[in-house]
Amino acid sequence: MGTTQLETVPEPKYWHLKTVLSEALDQDFAVGEVLPNERELAARFGVARATLRQALEQLELEGRLQRRRGVGTTVAPPRVGVAVRDAQHGWPGEATDGWQLVNATETVPAAAIAKLLGTGSDQAVHTVRRTRVTQGQAVAAELLYVPAASVPGLSALDAPSGPARARAILRELGHLVLEGQDRSVELGSARADDAKELDRLPGAPVLLVTTRYFTAAGTAAVSVATYRADTCRLTFGDSGDVQITHDTAEPVAS
Amino acid sequence: MGTTQLETVPEPKYWHLKTVLSEALDQDFAVGEVLPNERELAARFGVARATLRQALEQLELEGRLQRRRGVGTTVAPPRVGVAVRDAQHGWPGEATDGWQLVNATETVPAAAIAKLLGTGSDQAVHTVRRTRVTQGQAVAAELLYVPAASVPGLSALDAPSGPARARAILRELGHLVLEGQDRSVELGSARADDAKELDRLPGAPVLLVTTRYFTAAGTAAVSVATYRADTCRLTFGDSGDVQITHDTAEPVAS
Repeated sequence: MGTTQLETVPEPKYWHLKTVLSEALDQDFAVGEVLPNERELAARFGVARATLRQALEQLELEGRLQRRRGVGTTVAPPRVGVAVRDAQHGWPGEATDGWQLVNATETVPAAAIAKLLGTGSDQAVHTVRRTRVTQGQAVAAELLYVPAASVPGLSALDAPSGPARARAILRELGHLVLEGQDRSVELGSARADDAKELDRLPGAPVLLVTTRYFTAAGTAAVSVATYRADTCRLTFGDSGDVQITHDTAEPVAS
Repeated sequence: MGTTQLETVPEPKYWHLKTVLSEALDQDFAVGEVLPNERELAARFGVARATLRQALEQLELEGRLQRRRGVGTTVAPPRVGVAVRDAQHGWPGEATDGWQLVNATETVPAAAIAKLLGTGSDQAVHTVRRTRVTQGQAVAAELLYVPAASVPGLSALDAPSGPARARAILRELGHLVLEGQDRSVELGSARADDAKELDRLPGAPVLLVTTRYFTAAGTAAVSVATYRADTCRLTFGDSGDVQITHDTAEPVAS
């Protein structure tokens, strides 16, 4: 890394610093390497600590740096491509889709979810929690909301909680005829419970993928999956030629 | 808004404050309303300014608040659903897809783009810039990279620059047989030029949508679209039943 002093530039100083740092990361640092501390870096580039911190935050947003408590700031590996299931797929849990069942409970979902489900604002629904692990790392946590009306065959005698209960709910859901699904992706901040599962601090930037599953009767289930935004790149394959990739080194289509 | 004093809680203070503020926004504030200033809010909730600022940042990430220079912090309208073209669509610009041509130049793309295109690290490619406007607001800026080899019919006599040049490049691209495309979505920070077009500061969080277009010969073009993460929710419709929606009030499938 050089000792470049920043010249006066029309763009914000932290932005220019970010560009300089980014090049330095490419040239002088290896993945996983720990950066010098903030005081040292600020001195090296002749900038205020606040400016440095803004630039580091940018690089974190872009997935170039990881900041971890007790470790410091390290050079991040390239983001992992994580395939998002597309409409060719059926109900959640139908095939090996990389998700692991954690448990099932009944909860009153947030107002926005209740609206999507068309359930009352005080109505509890089955809530299945799943996690997705890629390359040994938890990359996503999901809550799948299923109103009781969608799974009338589910008996109180079925396992009352835990993964077995979750499996019973998915099994009943799988009996319905899936007419379609849609999906949205937006920026969010990790809820405390998801953050813990994803080894992040509450409020860390995440990508929220909301999926609605439709039967002829309407919305049968809604899934909200929280993906780590620092380490994940969501991939959407060519329709009809879907693959669960862990990277995008090769084109999906031939 | 109440005068709730925050009790000691196991989760980070700013996170609890965020939840309290979020409820206050639901109950006591209208969309577009300007929040009291930071000093006043910090006093009202009995927290340090730094804690308040962290909570406000969270709410901004979640799209609940907008912070604009000279205006202050306002309550954000719900995010706009912006449909991302799916594999059912053809080449960019083929149909009315909500994108407006801005100009065309020749640039040497960043290393990551050159790798996707399979072009040399010093090789200039055609670069078409487009913007997408929804409800009168610029929601996305796109750079479409097209190697000269993909558009051999493009003549130097075609308009040398500007929208006419851009149109000529897309016209030539449209003559190729599109074999497939894939797409990825990840978190990024707005580049200075995109930020300007999107009325944001450089480094603002954005959603980067990278699309690769394949012909039998390989990757013919790569598009990198930068969507405002504060105001946009990217929607992916049901395959075969795609719509350009501005909200998701109605299910895509019947």
